[in-house]
Amino acid sequence: MRRIVLVLTAVVALAGVVTYAADASEQTDGEAAPIFGVKIPTGYREWRLISVAHEEGNLNDLRAILGNDLAIKASREGKLPYPEGTIIARLAWSYDPLKESEKAFGRLQSFVAGPPKNGVQFMIKNSRKYASTGSWGFAQFDDGKPANEAVHNTCFSCHATVKARDFVFNRYAP
Amino acid sequence: MRRIVLVLTAVVALAGVVTYAADASEQTDGEAAPIFGVKIPTGYREWRLISVAHEEGNLNDLRAILGNDLAIKASREGKLPYPEGTIIARLAWSYDPLKESEKAFGRLQSFVAGPPKNGVQFMIKNSRKYASTGSWGFAQFDDGKPANEAVHNTCFSCHATVKARDFVFNRYAP
Repeated sequence: MRRIVLVLTAVVALAGVVTYAADASEQTDGEAAPIFGVKIPTGYREWRLISVAHEEGNLNDLRAILGNDLAIKASREGKLPYPEGTIIARLAWSYDPLKESEKAFGRLQSFVAGPPKNGVQFMIKNSRKYASTGSWGFAQFDDGKPANEAVHNTCFSCHATVKARDFVFNRYAP
Repeated sequence: MRRIVLVLTAVVALAGVVTYAADASEQTDGEAAPIFGVKIPTGYREWRLISVAHEEGNLNDLRAILGNDLAIKASREGKLPYPEGTIIARLAWSYDPLKESEKAFGRLQSFVAGPPKNGVQFMIKNSRKYASTGSWGFAQFDDGKPANEAVHNTCFSCHATVKARDFVFNRYAP
């Protein structure tokens, strides 16, 4: 019995390692973003939803926040800080009125995601690698290409506003 | 070699059946919605994202459209009609200004998902069961309880506006 428990523990531990590796280090072959050296994580569009948002003003987009398994678990539990290997993805699209809904309601009513806009952004937790920026690495990609260094210099200073929430703006939407 | 291929084919086929069953017929134990008899599908909050939206006016919410595997595949490919067993879930939350962002920008800028609002809605494709409503069953649940019959009477007439898109408003957001 003890042996079965040990083997099971080993299998579960190994599964954990494999999951972690898949989450934390699998990146696409593309160019790395400046400063933090982050590449686009493999399969991020398959990740589960953390929350949604709308930015007004110049940004004028609709957004979705997706997370790898570690991010989903941590944001559901609301425990801070986020564990090593957490990756949070911020997707955004043009804020477009839905014509069919305007016709049905007789006024602007529904706004939906149009083409991608304002890039795709990632936050990756690695306390060793990103010690000077709250243990987070940041990256933005526009049409699959990393944004420039100036863009990446703005990430941490803005996220510092929510240092009390481990630098993460979003909260899990149940 | 032929035997291995046969066994593999059987395994893959079985996996397909299991996935389909999990997608199409696993429902929670709760009460069924009126008219269409739909129960809340198991694990829908784990499904992948199709798109996001914002409703103005009285609805005033932020929404996410999630789909089971069949829905994700079909909406990515943009093929109509959606296959049997497709389930689309519409979640919605209160449209809340993000205080930290207002402070940083000096004006209202970011709106994020607050508490759940306007229920959770589902569309389930079953051409045999729902022949009179475009092959779709509709359901809305508020705090896990089915909405009343009057609410369910409005679903199909509104979705009929987008009959040309197989009665589905949303499009996949890449």
